[in-house]
Amino acid sequence: MTIFEQRESNIRAYARTYPTVFVTAKNARQVDENGKEYIDFFAGAGVLNFGHNNPHMKAAMIDYLQKDGVLHSLDMQTQAKAQFMQKFTDVILAPRNMPHRMQFMGPTGTNAVEAAMKLARNATGRHNIVAFSQGFHGMTLGALAATANEYFRQASGVPLLHVSHELFDQEHDHEAALAALDALGNQYRDPSSGIKPPAAFMVETIQAEGGVNVASKAWMQKLEKLAKEFGSVLIVDDIQVGCGRTGSYFSFDDMGIKPDIITLAKGIGGAGTPMAMNLVHPDLDKHWSPGEHTGTFRGQNLSFVAGEVALSYFDDNKLMNEVMEKVKTVRDALEPLVSENSAKELRGKGLILGLDMGSGDMAAKVVQRCFHKGLMLGACGSGGRVLKIIPPLTIPEADLAEGLDILKDAVRFVMEEAA
Amino acid sequence: MTIFEQRESNIRAYARTYPTVFVTAKNARQVDENGKEYIDFFAGAGVLNFGHNNPHMKAAMIDYLQKDGVLHSLDMQTQAKAQFMQKFTDVILAPRNMPHRMQFMGPTGTNAVEAAMKLARNATGRHNIVAFSQGFHGMTLGALAATANEYFRQASGVPLLHVSHELFDQEHDHEAALAALDALGNQYRDPSSGIKPPAAFMVETIQAEGGVNVASKAWMQKLEKLAKEFGSVLIVDDIQVGCGRTGSYFSFDDMGIKPDIITLAKGIGGAGTPMAMNLVHPDLDKHWSPGEHTGTFRGQNLSFVAGEVALSYFDDNKLMNEVMEKVKTVRDALEPLVSENSAKELRGKGLILGLDMGSGDMAAKVVQRCFHKGLMLGACGSGGRVLKIIPPLTIPEADLAEGLDILKDAVRFVMEEAA
Amino acid sequence: MTIFEQRESNIRAYARTYPTVFVTAKNARQVDENGKEYIDFFAGAGVLNFGHNNPHMKAAMIDYLQKDGVLHSLDMQTQAKAQFMQKFTDVILAPRNMPHRMQFMGPTGTNAVEAAMKLARNATGRHNIVAFSQGFHGMTLGALAATANEYFRQASGVPLLHVSHELFDQEHDHEAALAALDALGNQYRDPSSGIKPPAAFMVETIQAEGGVNVASKAWMQKLEKLAKEFGSVLIVDDIQVGCGRTGSYFSFDDMGIKPDIITLAKGIGGAGTPMAMNLVHPDLDKHWSPGEHTGTFRGQNLSFVAGEVALSYFDDNKLMNEVMEKVKTVRDALEPLVSENSAKELRGKGLILGLDMGSGDMAAKVVQRCFHKGLMLGACGSGGRVLKIIPPLTIPEADLAEGLDILKDAVRFVMEEAA
Amino acid sequence: MTIFEQRESNIRAYARTYPTVFVTAKNARQVDENGKEYIDFFAGAGVLNFGHNNPHMKAAMIDYLQKDGVLHSLDMQTQAKAQFMQKFTDVILAPRNMPHRMQFMGPTGTNAVEAAMKLARNATGRHNIVAFSQGFHGMTLGALAATANEYFRQASGVPLLHVSHELFDQEHDHEAALAALDALGNQYRDPSSGIKPPAAFMVETIQAEGGVNVASKAWMQKLEKLAKEFGSVLIVDDIQVGCGRTGSYFSFDDMGIKPDIITLAKGIGGAGTPMAMNLVHPDLDKHWSPGEHTGTFRGQNLSFVAGEVALSYFDDNKLMNEVMEKVKTVRDALEPLVSENSAKELRGKGLILGLDMGSGDMAAKVVQRCFHKGLMLGACGSGGRVLKIIPPLTIPEADLAEGLDILKDAVRFVMEEAA
Repeated sequence: MTIFEQRESNIRAYARTYPTVFVTAKNARQVDENGKEYIDFFAGAGVLNFGHNNPHMKAAMIDYLQKDGVLHSLDMQTQAKAQFMQKFTDVILAPRNMPHRMQFMGPTGTNAVEAAMKLARNATGRHNIVAFSQGFHGMTLGALAATANEYFRQASGVPLLHVSHELFDQEHDHEAALAALDALGNQYRDPSSGIKPPAAFMVETIQAEGGVNVASKAWMQKLEKLAKEFGSVLIVDDIQVGCGRTGSYFSFDDMGIKPDIITLAKGIGGAGTPMAMNLVHPDLDKHWSPGEHTGTFRGQNLSFVAGEVALSYFDDNKLMNEVMEKVKTVRDALEPLVSENSAKELRGKGLILGLDMGSGDMAAKVVQRCFHKGLMLGACGSGGRVLKIIPPLTIPEADLAEGLDILKDAVRFVMEEAA
Repeated sequence: MTIFEQRESNIRAYARTYPTVFVTAKNARQVDENGKEYIDFFAGAGVLNFGHNNPHMKAAMIDYLQKDGVLHSLDMQTQAKAQFMQKFTDVILAPRNMPHRMQFMGPTGTNAVEAAMKLARNATGRHNIVAFSQGFHGMTLGALAATANEYFRQASGVPLLHVSHELFDQEHDHEAALAALDALGNQYRDPSSGIKPPAAFMVETIQAEGGVNVASKAWMQKLEKLAKEFGSVLIVDDIQVGCGRTGSYFSFDDMGIKPDIITLAKGIGGAGTPMAMNLVHPDLDKHWSPGEHTGTFRGQNLSFVAGEVALSYFDDNKLMNEVMEKVKTVRDALEPLVSENSAKELRGKGLILGLDMGSGDMAAKVVQRCFHKGLMLGACGSGGRVLKIIPPLTIPEADLAEGLDILKDAVRFVMEEAA
Repeated sequence: MTIFEQRESNIRAYARTYPTVFVTAKNARQVDENGKEYIDFFAGAGVLNFGHNNPHMKAAMIDYLQKDGVLHSLDMQTQAKAQFMQKFTDVILAPRNMPHRMQFMGPTGTNAVEAAMKLARNATGRHNIVAFSQGFHGMTLGALAATANEYFRQASGVPLLHVSHELFDQEHDHEAALAALDALGNQYRDPSSGIKPPAAFMVETIQAEGGVNVASKAWMQKLEKLAKEFGSVLIVDDIQVGCGRTGSYFSFDDMGIKPDIITLAKGIGGAGTPMAMNLVHPDLDKHWSPGEHTGTFRGQNLSFVAGEVALSYFDDNKLMNEVMEKVKTVRDALEPLVSENSAKELRGKGLILGLDMGSGDMAAKVVQRCFHKGLMLGACGSGGRVLKIIPPLTIPEADLAEGLDILKDAVRFVMEEAA
Repeated sequence: MTIFEQRESNIRAYARTYPTVFVTAKNARQVDENGKEYIDFFAGAGVLNFGHNNPHMKAAMIDYLQKDGVLHSLDMQTQAKAQFMQKFTDVILAPRNMPHRMQFMGPTGTNAVEAAMKLARNATGRHNIVAFSQGFHGMTLGALAATANEYFRQASGVPLLHVSHELFDQEHDHEAALAALDALGNQYRDPSSGIKPPAAFMVETIQAEGGVNVASKAWMQKLEKLAKEFGSVLIVDDIQVGCGRTGSYFSFDDMGIKPDIITLAKGIGGAGTPMAMNLVHPDLDKHWSPGEHTGTFRGQNLSFVAGEVALSYFDDNKLMNEVMEKVKTVRDALEPLVSENSAKELRGKGLILGLDMGSGDMAAKVVQRCFHKGLMLGACGSGGRVLKIIPPLTIPEADLAEGLDILKDAVRFVMEEAA
């Protein structure tokens, strides 16, 4: 028995999907204790946008350690934090005329979501938050109430309150989705509907865990309009699809909307180093009093250091242009699987793509075969039926091509086996 | 205006208590951008038990980075994680005959607490968890319901449910505290009391944020007995006072109790590197199904690396013996303040000591003056009236002495000024 | 100052709408202390289906009092109760092949609703109950959660939980209403929708307080189908529109549905004598254990006596036929108000009709003028904009005609005044 | 099979305890369909303070019916209501200098409690209400949350929120009960206790269903003081023990306290005719807006008529003096049962007495035997171990003596059988 079998909790999950012991990793490749290499189409669930052990980040972190830089600082002021904040302002906020302030919290996405929910509730004096079917927002009790998946929800052991779930934009019936928002607005206007406007609407523009469901610009704009009409906060949860994943820094950059709060985590710390940060409009941020939402690890200076390096990828359009080329590579490779009926649908935006296998069993078999052949890949969506393709944005074209070949072969193999 | 004033959220707090910008740190000293040094009696709110930039940890982390060790791994298996788990088993669990399993989650204490609450509720099929007055367990909605402080609670914006608060052990009236537990037992036994046995009792043996309140062995044993009688899970939250803080690895090592779940965070990652881990008795752990409580940053390998080094401090009794000597130094220095009525009371266990000033205003003035004189110190308890002394366990005797002198002078100065 | 002004609670409401002191009443006329007579189109909010002081009931009650019949009996067995139950079985249940059992509770509609909600939740092990926008189900905390009107809801002072509100059938867009039920079914089928099938659907076939909104047969049938598919209890709240109000005993007699629970109150006691009773399918009823829902006044024998007399009106079709003729009289009188644009719409079913004035102010003025002219009438719907016409079913044609004349004149007067 | 077996809900309970069919009743005797007479020590669970078919009330009700008095009036003004209110003011409120206003609601005790809870929550802006172990306040969801008995609570099917239960005064340890209130006060004063002052304290001075537990004057006064200090509403639920039961109109007349709200039902309608009424201090009552808590049957004029007659019993002290003599009769008869160890304890106040048998099984056997021998009696308290003696206040001495003989014999018989 390994130490994991002996002593790790029964809750472990990826340890079962990828049954090996990893040792090293570099950009889009991970190596296990037997020296076997795996191409990574999973990127730490969307964390490693800039690759494993990105050399610039690595150098900066080693340098910071060598000079005894402060590592842990709660929300005290440090030089590394100042530099990160200045860079974020210069590269991301200022060019977009975003007046938002940065709030740091315990370095988990769920903590960012909890902070956003608190603020929205306190600022509006309302309890209910509207989230959406298939949405994923985290595992702690507040965020979990907004997470739609029943497997996660039942594990709470208590009723999940003060969040209601509405229909997300419908890939195949945008008109129905727009009409549903209109109907919701009518109910809010009617004092006898039993339903009141919420403290906030919290939405992912692309539901990653939910199955790579992409909201349309029209739907997002109607949602923003609804929020404004009823004084509800608009929270965009960009934790998995922000930080360049879609070919632009924010997933909503092309949508003409102005969220009140944007939650960020995963990619923001650069090297898989933990950080969570909300961008909060100053009109909302003033509702915070000092220390109302604390957290021991909210000042991780290695994350500020690596995160600052990550932001330099947005000094110009080079990486984002490369991303769009890689998207083309992926689509060209995988669309034939759909035309030949080996998969149901390919959808996505930027470098998050979902190959819908139509069944969780089939998807699981593809994941397993890919892993055997040296490709790491995750499944998502209802019943885990969608293969999620989210390699590092920095993946070399050769690795991307090799990975896509493995994937295509695996899909066809599994389909043939099932036939 | 600094970047912090321009762009950081209004919620920032320690930035106001310690109004400077820190750059480097080493063991028990931190240096700001003006080169001013501060002795650290705060240790990152109990995180930095082994000092800032501990040289052994620093070396191990640099080495790990240089050889491209996997940094981010969710709950996959890595070599660094295996080594950490083996070391924890060998040094901590096996010598105590503890069969507990290790559960890793998003690296915040609040996440560890949320996971413990979920498991207790699921395993028992009950909703309510009993926490205690003055207790602190975190900021996300589930944990926040267990946190007693009203300032934190009101910020939730929704009712905090499914947790009730009972009286903690009473420093000056242990009999009353024991009687209160008996009364509680009587209510559980009565089907017409309106009160049912809880899913869990969740308790800190020493309430750190709550004002350095120390539970007695007799009270803890009665609490354990109550939990056993009613099939309730006993959760000890050792996040702030575990990992050697009290002169032994767990704060309850001398109490003859066997908690079902022990929550750990803060010191467990060694270098201020984020980690959270629950120790769960196998009989409870089997109630987890794979992936029921996930988290992006639950596999932080730099934390495993530094955390493994930290565990080597428990290979023998050297550090723990030093700690007990330092406790004597602190008590000898500060007890006169109580005898001379400059402070109300000195209490604590091991190297967490609380100097109760009787008033939050007075305590705040002492903190401010200490900072001015080069000592970092935090306040806790109702209204912030207790000065909390939690230096790194590795603090050199000279720094300790110098810090204590600053503290004594500040207390006397503030008292005289007020007279 | 009258005793009411001196000593009655500020909460009194109808006392303000009808500012006089009533003394006697007979069938559809009420007389105040000045001898002024009022025709009654309000019937005690739908209670007095068989008129004030119905002579048969009066005689039976006096007789019962004179022979010292047991008046108050909780849920003990009495002769009067046996006779009522036998009559209800013979006249109502048996002819419809309804196997339902009768449950008596505290004599308020809200208590009937609370009992139904408890049973549905206990039998299914689920929390949530689906009610509908504009629905009214009572004022106690459980029933109030199902009541849609915000004025009533906010008065609870606590969050109203475990009920969600869906769109009721839409008068002017039945297709949308049917599609909304389909969409709901889709969400129940999806384990990642964040929404689970409810313990029960609770619905009024005609929303009386909600503005006289009438559900279509197709919508009710689809709702029943949804309930069956997901194992949810179907509760029809027939408190205001049952007991003959629609021209048949139950409001859903013409709909081809079989509700699991039917809540009754208001008219069931016959003479305005309080009674509440649920009809519960035996398969559900077996989930009750003895005494799980008690109530001091659940055995009101004067109500059984008068209620038995009321049931004799259903021995044959005479009254129901008269009702349908009176409906014609009302519609003929009021439809011109709509054609001439003095009112927006006339809707209803049987002898509950709603004249939608389009504005609560206008409706209030009509109510006030009618009262001045000797007609009692109530307003309902969002903002009180709908005049509700619910005279005793036994109202003489002459009184009906006189009342309609007053109403028509008042509507036209108010419209002209506003022009 | 009787009609009850065929068609009444499985929930019926007293029908099982008293398995016969009752026909007539007069003062303290009830007659079944076989002509068998039963002496009534149960009085409709405390409703029939003035006896079954009280001749004065009967005459007044018949007269009212004969002259076509308005029977059902919601909260409109009627002559009968005015007369009741004037009488209540003259006889009860004015002599006590009570400025309280009368609020009428749906005629159930639970409805009175729900209204009181709403008002307290709205007026204070707080959610939580403190009720007490063993307390009983009703069956609808709000009141049920305040009811302590688990058998009733579990039937709700949802979590019961926003009420916490504290220890009631302790018969055998008044000091502990007073200390518990002090401890509660300390927790309210501490912003880090996790507990905030409630919207209201709701208390029965004598817990009737809870086992005839009598609060001491000192404890009630301390409770009132606690309420005043923290701005909490003091609600005395006098539903079962008010209206003369204790030898004075209110159960707290001898306690020197001034409750903000007093809930009344059961005896207030006089003849078992349903009524519920809260007495509300004007400073609180002003927080009600018109119609915020409605109810169809809140204007029951037969209840006003009979209730007015009931109030005439308080024109002088005659009945109350008789009650105190009857109390002596009961105590003299039953105390020997305690001295001889046939019962554990006799307790009570006025004409509500509890004979604690120490076991629910024993008590049930006594109830059964008494019924067989012609005495109706109920059990209460944890597990139903307390025999509750609450005859009509008007019970003739001869009936009282005969009933007591049956009771004594039954107790001894059951004890001997068990020996």
